[in-house]
Amino acid sequence: MIAQYPPMGWNSWDCYGAAVNETQVMQNADYMAKHLKKYGWEYVVVDIEWFQPTASSHEYEPFSQLTMDAYGRLTPAVNRFPSAAGGKGFGPLADYVHGLGLKFGIHIMRGLPRMAAHRRLPVLNSEFTCADAANPNSICQWNPDMYGLKCDQPAAKAYYDSIFALYASWGVDFVKCDDIAREYPHCAREIELISEACRGCGREIVLSLSPGPAPLEQAEHLKQYANMWRITDDFWDEWRLLRAMFERAEKWCVHAGPGHWPDADMLPVGPLRQDYDGNDRTKFTRAEQRTMMTLWCMMRSPLMIGGEMTKFDTFTLSLLTNEKLLAIEKESFCAHPVWMKEDASAWVAPRRDGTGVYAAVFNLSDDERTVTLPLSDLEMSDTVRAQSIWTDENAEKHGCLSARLSPHDAAAWLIANE
Amino acid sequence: MIAQYPPMGWNSWDCYGAAVNETQVMQNADYMAKHLKKYGWEYVVVDIEWFQPTASSHEYEPFSQLTMDAYGRLTPAVNRFPSAAGGKGFGPLADYVHGLGLKFGIHIMRGLPRMAAHRRLPVLNSEFTCADAANPNSICQWNPDMYGLKCDQPAAKAYYDSIFALYASWGVDFVKCDDIAREYPHCAREIELISEACRGCGREIVLSLSPGPAPLEQAEHLKQYANMWRITDDFWDEWRLLRAMFERAEKWCVHAGPGHWPDADMLPVGPLRQDYDGNDRTKFTRAEQRTMMTLWCMMRSPLMIGGEMTKFDTFTLSLLTNEKLLAIEKESFCAHPVWMKEDASAWVAPRRDGTGVYAAVFNLSDDERTVTLPLSDLEMSDTVRAQSIWTDENAEKHGCLSARLSPHDAAAWLIANE
Amino acid sequence: MIAQYPPMGWNSWDCYGAAVNETQVMQNADYMAKHLKKYGWEYVVVDIEWFQPTASSHEYEPFSQLTMDAYGRLTPAVNRFPSAAGGKGFGPLADYVHGLGLKFGIHIMRGLPRMAAHRRLPVLNSEFTCADAANPNSICQWNPDMYGLKCDQPAAKAYYDSIFALYASWGVDFVKCDDIAREYPHCAREIELISEACRGCGREIVLSLSPGPAPLEQAEHLKQYANMWRITDDFWDEWRLLRAMFERAEKWCVHAGPGHWPDADMLPVGPLRQDYDGNDRTKFTRAEQRTMMTLWCMMRSPLMIGGEMTKFDTFTLSLLTNEKLLAIEKESFCAHPVWMKEDASAWVAPRRDGTGVYAAVFNLSDDERTVTLPLSDLEMSDTVRAQSIWTDENAEKHGCLSARLSPHDAAAWLIANE
Amino acid sequence: MIAQYPPMGWNSWDCYGAAVNETQVMQNADYMAKHLKKYGWEYVVVDIEWFQPTASSHEYEPFSQLTMDAYGRLTPAVNRFPSAAGGKGFGPLADYVHGLGLKFGIHIMRGLPRMAAHRRLPVLNSEFTCADAANPNSICQWNPDMYGLKCDQPAAKAYYDSIFALYASWGVDFVKCDDIAREYPHCAREIELISEACRGCGREIVLSLSPGPAPLEQAEHLKQYANMWRITDDFWDEWRLLRAMFERAEKWCVHAGPGHWPDADMLPVGPLRQDYDGNDRTKFTRAEQRTMMTLWCMMRSPLMIGGEMTKFDTFTLSLLTNEKLLAIEKESFCAHPVWMKEDASAWVAPRRDGTGVYAAVFNLSDDERTVTLPLSDLEMSDTVRAQSIWTDENAEKHGCLSARLSPHDAAAWLIANE
Repeated sequence: MIAQYPPMGWNSWDCYGAAVNETQVMQNADYMAKHLKKYGWEYVVVDIEWFQPTASSHEYEPFSQLTMDAYGRLTPAVNRFPSAAGGKGFGPLADYVHGLGLKFGIHIMRGLPRMAAHRRLPVLNSEFTCADAANPNSICQWNPDMYGLKCDQPAAKAYYDSIFALYASWGVDFVKCDDIAREYPHCAREIELISEACRGCGREIVLSLSPGPAPLEQAEHLKQYANMWRITDDFWDEWRLLRAMFERAEKWCVHAGPGHWPDADMLPVGPLRQDYDGNDRTKFTRAEQRTMMTLWCMMRSPLMIGGEMTKFDTFTLSLLTNEKLLAIEKESFCAHPVWMKEDASAWVAPRRDGTGVYAAVFNLSDDERTVTLPLSDLEMSDTVRAQSIWTDENAEKHGCLSARLSPHDAAAWLIANE
Repeated sequence: MIAQYPPMGWNSWDCYGAAVNETQVMQNADYMAKHLKKYGWEYVVVDIEWFQPTASSHEYEPFSQLTMDAYGRLTPAVNRFPSAAGGKGFGPLADYVHGLGLKFGIHIMRGLPRMAAHRRLPVLNSEFTCADAANPNSICQWNPDMYGLKCDQPAAKAYYDSIFALYASWGVDFVKCDDIAREYPHCAREIELISEACRGCGREIVLSLSPGPAPLEQAEHLKQYANMWRITDDFWDEWRLLRAMFERAEKWCVHAGPGHWPDADMLPVGPLRQDYDGNDRTKFTRAEQRTMMTLWCMMRSPLMIGGEMTKFDTFTLSLLTNEKLLAIEKESFCAHPVWMKEDASAWVAPRRDGTGVYAAVFNLSDDERTVTLPLSDLEMSDTVRAQSIWTDENAEKHGCLSARLSPHDAAAWLIANE
Repeated sequence: MIAQYPPMGWNSWDCYGAAVNETQVMQNADYMAKHLKKYGWEYVVVDIEWFQPTASSHEYEPFSQLTMDAYGRLTPAVNRFPSAAGGKGFGPLADYVHGLGLKFGIHIMRGLPRMAAHRRLPVLNSEFTCADAANPNSICQWNPDMYGLKCDQPAAKAYYDSIFALYASWGVDFVKCDDIAREYPHCAREIELISEACRGCGREIVLSLSPGPAPLEQAEHLKQYANMWRITDDFWDEWRLLRAMFERAEKWCVHAGPGHWPDADMLPVGPLRQDYDGNDRTKFTRAEQRTMMTLWCMMRSPLMIGGEMTKFDTFTLSLLTNEKLLAIEKESFCAHPVWMKEDASAWVAPRRDGTGVYAAVFNLSDDERTVTLPLSDLEMSDTVRAQSIWTDENAEKHGCLSARLSPHDAAAWLIANE
Repeated sequence: MIAQYPPMGWNSWDCYGAAVNETQVMQNADYMAKHLKKYGWEYVVVDIEWFQPTASSHEYEPFSQLTMDAYGRLTPAVNRFPSAAGGKGFGPLADYVHGLGLKFGIHIMRGLPRMAAHRRLPVLNSEFTCADAANPNSICQWNPDMYGLKCDQPAAKAYYDSIFALYASWGVDFVKCDDIAREYPHCAREIELISEACRGCGREIVLSLSPGPAPLEQAEHLKQYANMWRITDDFWDEWRLLRAMFERAEKWCVHAGPGHWPDADMLPVGPLRQDYDGNDRTKFTRAEQRTMMTLWCMMRSPLMIGGEMTKFDTFTLSLLTNEKLLAIEKESFCAHPVWMKEDASAWVAPRRDGTGVYAAVFNLSDDERTVTLPLSDLEMSDTVRAQSIWTDENAEKHGCLSARLSPHDAAAWLIANE
């Protein structure tokens, strides 16, 4: 099964924006293989604009000369990804990542390049041109590259099939498709076409949809056609965004399951935004990073690291290699909030094997405070044995779980069933 | 803890509307004591208009002469509840029900009688009159009896305290407060006042709020101040209403927990609507009744029987005494839908003791069909042992749970953890 | 024709609120007869709560003992209106006003007194009681006295006929019906019933509907059933309210015509709010008062004086006796704004006899400034003769009309057709 | 003054769609000069897609090769407009039209050609390219040719100035700018830029904005920056569209004035839609055509003929040459509806010279009926002299104006002031 558990990996956006290059990808892949792979991290994903030779920041350059093949399929800009020379595309880079025991992913935009439509390039293995497939009225509101497709036309299916055939030939394991997840209802059919092309391409490829917020009422459509989908707009290292994720998580948690995972977006940890000054690091406090990791794991969100890994400090690495925490992603199910107060929240998630229950508490206030979760709220007996997720404690608890927490911090426990 | 598990009982509305009398209540209590008590059923609730001497149907009569004491507190109409004579109120009837080992409940409307305001009756143990407490602009849209209260006035608190003191003196165990649960935001403070009066009256009384739909975004307020609250408008024996409950259940399931239960409303089973012709029985098919009971139990809704119990047939009694099913209400937690398709749905709910997981499937289509739930959707191993809830089967299942189901029917299993 | 021109008169609300008494009404009527009648002012209207013995301010007292006859028809509180003693109602006061050569009006609320419904009083000349006519769910949001009627019931028609028969017997010439003009759509039928009772009562009575804003899309319904209707919520002596009237006037001006006049509400001039300290006078500057009068006349709004007339100063009297201005109300038609800018506006209104055109300019800014209206905007020739409405000037104008205006001031001219 | 009166002319859209050619334009100009000019008709307007060589119907062809000059300015397709050869643009055709004593107009889309942006063509007399001026996210929803401009960039101003300089050099008298009038608020600034370029180009050019509905709340902005603007979506020969114009006209009539005219769109009379079968004629009945012409003239809408004039029948020509009717456009002002009923409506408009008043009645029902307008509704004396607009009658009228009308027909009169 594809994406049986929430996918874990790294994505180039938070650190490099539209400008990542091959060396950076390889260095991060090396780091992941050496330091993170054994904890379950596996995907290395090249984000947006790998086909734009002059991309240099998080901004998009309109009317730029995108690299593409004779069939209007975007190819890596060779000045940024030298191994793509000679028409090899991402094949060599994917090989490199695979050689490390990892998996390789790319970002795409729905649709086809505007220039391919204006040039009327042919669609591979079809009688159509890109002008037949492109919908001149369907554009992205924030990126200037593409036209969406006329999804009721066979030319559209032919084009999507042609690009996934290319990705499969390169060895791609993960596709993050953008400008689509919040574009219901008019993109519903486009999601279906992309999903069918992905599943029919002959290679197992995780399909991830962006950006959010995907509409909650489309949960079943998303579960059917995608492996993960964004539940918010871009998430960055700001407390108000992290705070807001609790409401999203509450609404989406019932839809997490094998093969279909609501996605709370990348983890902005470590060095970020390298196009700005090269010294930018996450603005999240350590407490906030614990809260983020705890919430993401309790709700079983995919985990995609956003920062430049090779410059991680000890804390950041420890955050991402907490085995007790990461086990929640793979061993729990049926998570949901116990309560959500102005200043605090609690979550619960049973282990699937019946041996215990995960519980977490969050200090949502701006002050240090004690957050208490009565065991009766969990319908548990008055005495339990609880192993702390973020500390070494393993102790009997009477009446409640309780933690003294820094502002925005979290605590979590695994409570054994008797 | 009050309402540690979802309350189970009987309510007079579906069968008798506004017109139920003492004999009918006693006969149903007798039946419950004899046939249902041992399965967990315990509350006997007198619904709306017990203070209206001429009530004769499900309709409300405007400007009628409600019976009340000198403090503007409504009292049972003696012609309908003879044991209330001499100012004894519901005390004797509550005693009778308690004597059967059951619990006694009543319905109230928020506010105070309009006539008590116009007559400026005094509020007990206060310097205020009912005219001070009543808000002349706050009326119910569907019932003509009451004015809501000016909740920022001490007179309002005094009035609510006075009525709960009376109910406690009668021995009331359950109060269903009406015209309030869907009246957010303007009734938020009124809910708090009523809740505080209830909890401060010296007797353990379950507080139930009606009618729905209570607003989902008020879930935490409801959890804090009420023991159960309606999530829909009145539920009756129509498939479209039962079908619609699946969407409600999906949204509310994460909010069920000890002391606070989203309420899918009464079970319209057996003889109903006795004011119409006396021969009216539920229009639900047996399949639909199984679906209703299965969904209510999986989502842990309170269970309040709506029909005239003394005339139950064998099927109806069997429906309400399925011990394997009713165990879900008390033994499970963290339920949620696995998926919700146009024609079918599946739910899952772990047992709290870790010994197993409940799973249910529903045929939402109008045709007989086989509904299949892959074990992989539950993240289970490929072979499990499953005990059927609605049949005697107890068997190994390979790959999936599957059932051939009549239109609108349900199947459920308890799957053992290894 | 009733209300052939926009009605002009005085109303007790702005000065006395709910508490006006007979002496005050008579003194104001005396003043009008002596100082204003010859300029066209004629209606003397007693506003809300004349049936409430303890009314003492602009506030309403809930659950008070309203004076009414045996048929649930409200009658003047004799302590406030002594001439009403002996069941004479407003007959003697109307006679007094008529004796001065003026007309007499009263305020009513839609519906019938709540107490008349709870007491089940009979409806005159019918088989019904007030309980049959009253709709227990139809109440005013800001006044506690009445229930609206069940307009599909013959009892409702019988009640409205009974009250207009009473008003006709008293000699009432003007009825301002409240809680109705902005209550579309549910009050559409109630407006029709009241209008039919008014027109069928045997006496010519102007029907005025309050409060606003009446919905613009109901203009034709209002034109058919009422003689005037409020286009805003209560208007008071605040510049922001006067400023906002320009937008309302623009939308409603096309609906002014004989028998049906959009009403910009009372003129808060002179002494106001006598229940507060007795020394309160309009907060409008003289400039603002000129602007108000000019706009009201250009749009042909009814003119109802709000202040205590007997204490008018010279300016206020002069404001209300500008014959050149008041002629616009009777002699113009087809008015509309020429333009509406952030800081200034211009209006035009032809005379019906073809002899000239009225034009007005308004300084909407907070600074003194010159406002210029090019004659080409009026499609006029480059030289015209213009008589100033607010000054004695009568001069040739070349190219434009122009005025140096204080903040919020207005100028107006009558331009002769050649 | 530009557009002192509502512009009158012919536009190629209703008949030829996107495919009109030079011969057709010249033939229609010839006809107008010979038959219509003396009645005030003067503009000959070439509608959309004159720069598209393969246009052949009312449809738009995406990704087509638009003809443009080296500065990204669209030029006439020479295969359709042979006189444009040699870079002469519309100069020769404009000369031809001017030679007939008429004026020449063209249609444009806001923005610049998408291909000009992708090719990064220079903007004339500037340091910018079309890529600097184009906004890649601003596209038309129904036409695939253009990108809107980045109106806060000097490149945008430079581009608009460059195209109006070209139009002025050609001798254009009228520009209908499309994809803009209903695109508030985001197109407000684009309207201003276009208006400034138009007014600054050194030639008097009427600026007309399409498509509607322009938002009513932008009336003052439109009055300031445009000479006419559409108040509905495309108007065609369907009764429901004509019926709906009455509501639009009521709201917009107060905004008509010299230089700024709310536009009810083209008159679909005579032969239409020549791309379909060449035999298509207006579906409007003669009665409906009279109603259309009467309403357009009473509200002073611009009049742009939509049909192929050279094939007009006698009725159509008579419709467009009714001098008494067309005089309303030039001689009236301050028009507005008298009333608007389900089945009938009446309008009034004074003559500016004070000599009379125009009145019109409309039968909006599907049946023949008599429509009566009481003279009291016009505040006129009981006897008037009325000259009929659509017949030869000139008679005294007593009490009312009245006409027996076919379904959807109209009558109108000029009533003399005494």
